[in-house]
Amino acid sequence: MAEQTADSTSTIEKLVLHPWFQRIIIALILLNGVVITAETYLPGNDVLLTIDTIIVWLFVLEAAVKLKGLGIKRYFSNGWNIFDFTIVTLSLVLYNTPLVSVLRLVRVLRLIRMIPAIPALKRIIDSLVRSIPALTGILGLTSLIFSMYAIIGTVFFRDVLPYEFFGSFHTALFTLLQVVTFESWASQVARPVIAEIPWAWFYFVSFIIVGALIILNLVVAVILDYLGHDEEIEQKQQMEKLFADNQELKEEMQEIKELLKRRS
Amino acid sequence: MAEQTADSTSTIEKLVLHPWFQRIIIALILLNGVVITAETYLPGNDVLLTIDTIIVWLFVLEAAVKLKGLGIKRYFSNGWNIFDFTIVTLSLVLYNTPLVSVLRLVRVLRLIRMIPAIPALKRIIDSLVRSIPALTGILGLTSLIFSMYAIIGTVFFRDVLPYEFFGSFHTALFTLLQVVTFESWASQVARPVIAEIPWAWFYFVSFIIVGALIILNLVVAVILDYLGHDEEIEQKQQMEKLFADNQELKEEMQEIKELLKRRS
Amino acid sequence: MAEQTADSTSTIEKLVLHPWFQRIIIALILLNGVVITAETYLPGNDVLLTIDTIIVWLFVLEAAVKLKGLGIKRYFSNGWNIFDFTIVTLSLVLYNTPLVSVLRLVRVLRLIRMIPAIPALKRIIDSLVRSIPALTGILGLTSLIFSMYAIIGTVFFRDVLPYEFFGSFHTALFTLLQVVTFESWASQVARPVIAEIPWAWFYFVSFIIVGALIILNLVVAVILDYLGHDEEIEQKQQMEKLFADNQELKEEMQEIKELLKRRS
Amino acid sequence: MAEQTADSTSTIEKLVLHPWFQRIIIALILLNGVVITAETYLPGNDVLLTIDTIIVWLFVLEAAVKLKGLGIKRYFSNGWNIFDFTIVTLSLVLYNTPLVSVLRLVRVLRLIRMIPAIPALKRIIDSLVRSIPALTGILGLTSLIFSMYAIIGTVFFRDVLPYEFFGSFHTALFTLLQVVTFESWASQVARPVIAEIPWAWFYFVSFIIVGALIILNLVVAVILDYLGHDEEIEQKQQMEKLFADNQELKEEMQEIKELLKRRS
Repeated sequence: MAEQTADSTSTIEKLVLHPWFQRIIIALILLNGVVITAETYLPGNDVLLTIDTIIVWLFVLEAAVKLKGLGIKRYFSNGWNIFDFTIVTLSLVLYNTPLVSVLRLVRVLRLIRMIPAIPALKRIIDSLVRSIPALTGILGLTSLIFSMYAIIGTVFFRDVLPYEFFGSFHTALFTLLQVVTFESWASQVARPVIAEIPWAWFYFVSFIIVGALIILNLVVAVILDYLGHDEEIEQKQQMEKLFADNQELKEEMQEIKELLKRRS
Repeated sequence: MAEQTADSTSTIEKLVLHPWFQRIIIALILLNGVVITAETYLPGNDVLLTIDTIIVWLFVLEAAVKLKGLGIKRYFSNGWNIFDFTIVTLSLVLYNTPLVSVLRLVRVLRLIRMIPAIPALKRIIDSLVRSIPALTGILGLTSLIFSMYAIIGTVFFRDVLPYEFFGSFHTALFTLLQVVTFESWASQVARPVIAEIPWAWFYFVSFIIVGALIILNLVVAVILDYLGHDEEIEQKQQMEKLFADNQELKEEMQEIKELLKRRS
Repeated sequence: MAEQTADSTSTIEKLVLHPWFQRIIIALILLNGVVITAETYLPGNDVLLTIDTIIVWLFVLEAAVKLKGLGIKRYFSNGWNIFDFTIVTLSLVLYNTPLVSVLRLVRVLRLIRMIPAIPALKRIIDSLVRSIPALTGILGLTSLIFSMYAIIGTVFFRDVLPYEFFGSFHTALFTLLQVVTFESWASQVARPVIAEIPWAWFYFVSFIIVGALIILNLVVAVILDYLGHDEEIEQKQQMEKLFADNQELKEEMQEIKELLKRRS
Repeated sequence: MAEQTADSTSTIEKLVLHPWFQRIIIALILLNGVVITAETYLPGNDVLLTIDTIIVWLFVLEAAVKLKGLGIKRYFSNGWNIFDFTIVTLSLVLYNTPLVSVLRLVRVLRLIRMIPAIPALKRIIDSLVRSIPALTGILGLTSLIFSMYAIIGTVFFRDVLPYEFFGSFHTALFTLLQVVTFESWASQVARPVIAEIPWAWFYFVSFIIVGALIILNLVVAVILDYLGHDEEIEQKQQMEKLFADNQELKEEMQEIKELLKRRS
């Protein structure tokens, strides 16, 4: 009987790893996306809600089959499966919730499942995640500079503009994000402040320049990181092959010299 | 008589492939551009309309000559010729149409003929088209993220701003394009929403950061793609030549060793 | 006597080519800049006008000395000298002109003389000029796409917005420049048009995407151009040296083989 | 007794260079940041002010210990230590100042101490500083072009817009910074000016294009600078190793030839 279970498990495992299983799941996620989009045009439509419910139950089935086919350990060793499981569980738990907006949010989050399902998308996310360590320095510096400018802004410009600009630390951070994206930074933020506090031009001009420099460094860091991953590795391999080649040549010559010397 | 036709065909073929034929066509397209531009200043001017009609008939003549000279199969095997043919046919079909605005649009589209006519332009379009496969992953991810944020925006911010911002899925997509280009994203979109729904700051800040990351990745992907096409190929060829060189050296050494061993 | 003239010419030539001559001219141009800037704060100040007149006459003297020292042919063979001469002549000709604003413009243009005087600036301009040929294709494509969109805009949106937006071909070009720099493209241009002509969203979205693609290509073209100029040339030289090295090795081996064969 | 002092000095030196000393200082600076941020929410809170005072005295202690441990010469040979010392001294000097806002500024500037304390941040600042020489040319050209456009703007557009746009040289510089970041350049600056002075379109369009070209060159210069620092150095080393390898091969061959010739 244990054997039979093992057999059925491996059958399920084959099913889970079958390319058509994955294709059907992708089709389901896409259909899920179409349904959710359609719901924004026809909110509360019964047909759409029914299809949505069916899709949720199919997702539950999929998670169960995968859990059975791969085993609990193997299933949860993959970060994306944990995400899938959480979303499906939340969908079920919140099914009859009065928190309609949370349920709606979970429904949209289900679309993220498309990322692990489609290799091209997964690769981008993976390379994004891989490039994060290279960016910690720049992100730390960005936090530091944003914090410093936000504190200075809150201390000195608090009463010049309406509360939502420099009224508190967090609104100041938001305003600085607006400034660093060059969005109405002069017309809406800098000019009214400078009209009251003339030296504020230095605050804004220095922040614009420092912000632009940091963004520039971020771009360069990402480009170099990518260049490093792909090209440099290949180049190194070729160089190593060249050196190995040369080593062979040298050894051959040693042999020739040995032959010559032995004979003479 | 068949021979005579063949002769005349090859004469026409020579004519079609003659550099001056191409130059005259480019001149005609440029003149066409000048006429259409002049028409925006003098709408309904008779002289301009007459020149335009003449140019259309010259384009018809050109298409006919090319069709005759290259043969139907060879003519339609080129995507640009199909475009030319469609535009010329549409120009004729719509000549006495009451759909004046469609006719005008077709007239402007004739200017696209400049792209296949001028090699420098054709090369850019070709390289753009060639780089599309490298971008499918990023474009897919962009669609996914835009869709998710658009659905969330429609569900939660529908009643906060006027209908044209988050009223429906497609207006939300347009608003997100506005946000991702940093155009009045704070002053016109984010600040009014946050004033009503405080947690919306997370929606906008996360979208700004994710959007910027995606654009950054797009830029990097295009740069790497171009670098790959030109430089890497050349480098690989040189490396292969180096390895071939080394191979030759090794073979020579084998020969020398053979010579030495045979003699001893 | 001819000899004496030759002598004095060569003395002047030495003077012109002396590093201190150049340094004094740079100092004069900088002083000129300070005077012109000061004039914006004190318009019509007598002291500043006097200094300005003295500087103009020193520039005349400089041009005369250089003309004498280098000879007419050598002097005018340099594009920057022609620019210098034109500016100085215009300064003199316009000295008592009623066209005060033209005179003021010429005075500012004198500052451009700083570019050939300071090598670091000259190098940037030279490399910019050198990269123009690589960009002709992209610039041509940009002109074509701007023209097409401007004509379509003028034909269809003429009556929707005030005259200065799509009223005529040239105002439409200006509006498209505003759109491609993402400046109020949605809030000021696209949204009001779409409110009247719903299909206009396609016009603006396609222009934004095409415009961004073209700018991206421009950036890539410039980067590749620079990379090509510096790095590739060096790499090629090294590769050629490697191949020459290998050739030497092969010839040596041939010699060894000859020696072995001859002896046996 | 001199020995004992030397001993205690070296004990202090060991303390200063101990990793835990540095970690505690980083923790203090971070705590300092939290306290300053909290103060923006609770201005004048006694607890926060007390913690702040304690932190200042701990910083004084740290500076004294470092000064003792490293010696005056070694301490002040590091630019960051000079910065630390200045900030700490200013904090003490201004402690009971009526210039509350200056004191507050110094308090925020203390956060900059995080940069030398965390290696990842220090590295970025160092590489930024190192890339400045490569940018002098571009920065000089930027100053020249900004000055020229500012003077022209002040002379011709002074009376068209309110004083804060082109009223004087320095407000014109600020307006040009707004234009070059594409912030409301058309809607707020260019369109009102062009409405009065039609030829001004050339002023703005040329500045936009020149400004974009300069920014592009800045980006390229920074990218090339970084690429040069890391990759090229490595590549050169490998190439030199290759050439050295080839040299060895040639020498070996010379030996073989010598052997052959000697024997025959």
